Amino acid sequence: MLISKEDRERLKSLRISDFYFTQSISTRWMDNDAYGHVNNAVYYSFFDTVVNTFLIEKIGLAVPSSDTIGLVVGSNCQYFAPVSYPDSITASLRVESLGNSSVTYGIGIFKESDETLLAYGNFVHVFVTREDSKPVQIPEFIRAGLEKARV
Amino acid sequence: MLISKEDRERLKSLRISDFYFTQSISTRWMDNDAYGHVNNAVYYSFFDTVVNTFLIEKIGLAVPSSDTIGLVVGSNCQYFAPVSYPDSITASLRVESLGNSSVTYGIGIFKESDETLLAYGNFVHVFVTREDSKPVQIPEFIRAGLEKARV
Amino acid sequence: MLISKEDRERLKSLRISDFYFTQSISTRWMDNDAYGHVNNAVYYSFFDTVVNTFLIEKIGLAVPSSDTIGLVVGSNCQYFAPVSYPDSITASLRVESLGNSSVTYGIGIFKESDETLLAYGNFVHVFVTREDSKPVQIPEFIRAGLEKARV
Amino acid sequence: MLISKEDRERLKSLRISDFYFTQSISTRWMDNDAYGHVNNAVYYSFFDTVVNTFLIEKIGLAVPSSDTIGLVVGSNCQYFAPVSYPDSITASLRVESLGNSSVTYGIGIFKESDETLLAYGNFVHVFVTREDSKPVQIPEFIRAGLEKARV
Repeated sequence: MLISKEDRERLKSLRISDFYFTQSISTRWMDNDAYGHVNNAVYYSFFDTVVNTFLIEKIGLAVPSSDTIGLVVGSNCQYFAPVSYPDSITASLRVESLGNSSVTYGIGIFKESDETLLAYGNFVHVFVTREDSKPVQIPEFIRAGLEKARV
Repeated sequence: MLISKEDRERLKSLRISDFYFTQSISTRWMDNDAYGHVNNAVYYSFFDTVVNTFLIEKIGLAVPSSDTIGLVVGSNCQYFAPVSYPDSITASLRVESLGNSSVTYGIGIFKESDETLLAYGNFVHVFVTREDSKPVQIPEFIRAGLEKARV
Repeated sequence: MLISKEDRERLKSLRISDFYFTQSISTRWMDNDAYGHVNNAVYYSFFDTVVNTFLIEKIGLAVPSSDTIGLVVGSNCQYFAPVSYPDSITASLRVESLGNSSVTYGIGIFKESDETLLAYGNFVHVFVTREDSKPVQIPEFIRAGLEKARV
Repeated sequence: MLISKEDRERLKSLRISDFYFTQSISTRWMDNDAYGHVNNAVYYSFFDTVVNTFLIEKIGLAVPSSDTIGLVVGSNCQYFAPVSYPDSITASLRVESLGNSSVTYGIGIFKESDETLLAYGNFVHVFVTREDSKPVQIPEFIRAGLEKARV
């Protein structure tokens, strides 16, 4: 399962209160795959969505014009329970670690109706120049916002 | 533009109050295309989502087990204004016409923050047997629900 | 069905040879919806894909830098037969009409294995300035390429 | 980066010849995100696609009727280089480990035109009953097919 049983059990005990920022996301008819559940790849678009909403709305990153952008260099997900459209989910975000130019987010996906933990994943952003994708120090206003979300 | 200028102007004047059922749908980071706006194909997944939410939650269609399912035979959309993630949209539904085995929905997509009409489209469902896709009379409990949504 | 029975029958008789440009597109596991068929909204992403491939590869539109971009103002689709992953499809393109600043494409979606017509749709691009989305005359090199694809 | 620098370097040296099964997948206009590159979540739909194509076409899994289905319990991805529509990619598959009821796939995503390694990821399937999602021994005909893909 790519991680140890113990680590998986530990993740499984996470609750929404263990996170810093949450966002409700509606599922869509086409999220359900041929087995009738939200497809595994869709969870990564939930990760993307909550991370960028945090960067844009809470930290003030201007996606269309910013010289510095976040590039995804790694991600992973552990799935615990299925969910199906039309249920909504609550995507919950925290910062697990913060380096010079990179940040590792931890994201919990919960069923909105009963707060079942559906999945937990990580997502690593390296901040780079938009122009030529060279890693840069995380700009100060972004770092300050990320620090607050640290667990 | 596939329809006359007059028809397009008429559609443009629609407001949320012209519809029967509404649903808020969050946009996602990956909905934005290379031009920074929600991609045109994504609007059809909003249509799909509001129609099926209505069928499931208001009418009681049981997607995993129903013998009768709705098959899309035609759809169209007129686009009026762009929207970008992280804005949410309000999908608004009404029934435009109701035949023996088919129904034509009208769907308005509005920006949630200021109720700008972003797009208007139609979606035609023919009800068929799940088994062999033969058209059937719309089951009575479904017809009753669709009648209420008629404009 | 949004169009007359006669028009629908006429479209149904189209073959790949009625088009100017074709592209093979692989379906994906997640294209299949809960009923096991490629979801109706996915067809519009096939339209988008074949139109932009034509503009980029055959006409030379430079998406990241072009001052003029194509904005979708209307689209429609008639569905004739379902298809399921892992089948591939052949998206086939022609130009139906060409105005000062807009073009109407006709797109046929065929099952690759046996050339069954799955769907036929239209897609209207208005060419606008990237900066402020003002309609402009179609640039000459684009018009020349679109003329060739006219039926 | 969720893995050590050494592990990341080791993965980076993989070539298509290190895999057992390959599939060409076309990218789509809407795969490109606001930064003009194929979105990170889309890579997981490439994983899904090549794994299920292998199961269906090479092993004979009957998705609509099989009593046993593969459930994704974990996945991860390391990203090495971006790619943009309209480039095609080559998804390459191998089996990394095989348990009683689970299999870990390794998937390399290469740019089709020049075989640049774009990303490498894992995907864990647990085989379960379709009825109630209970883990089962991998059926013999599936195990035999997976054994062949082992590195």
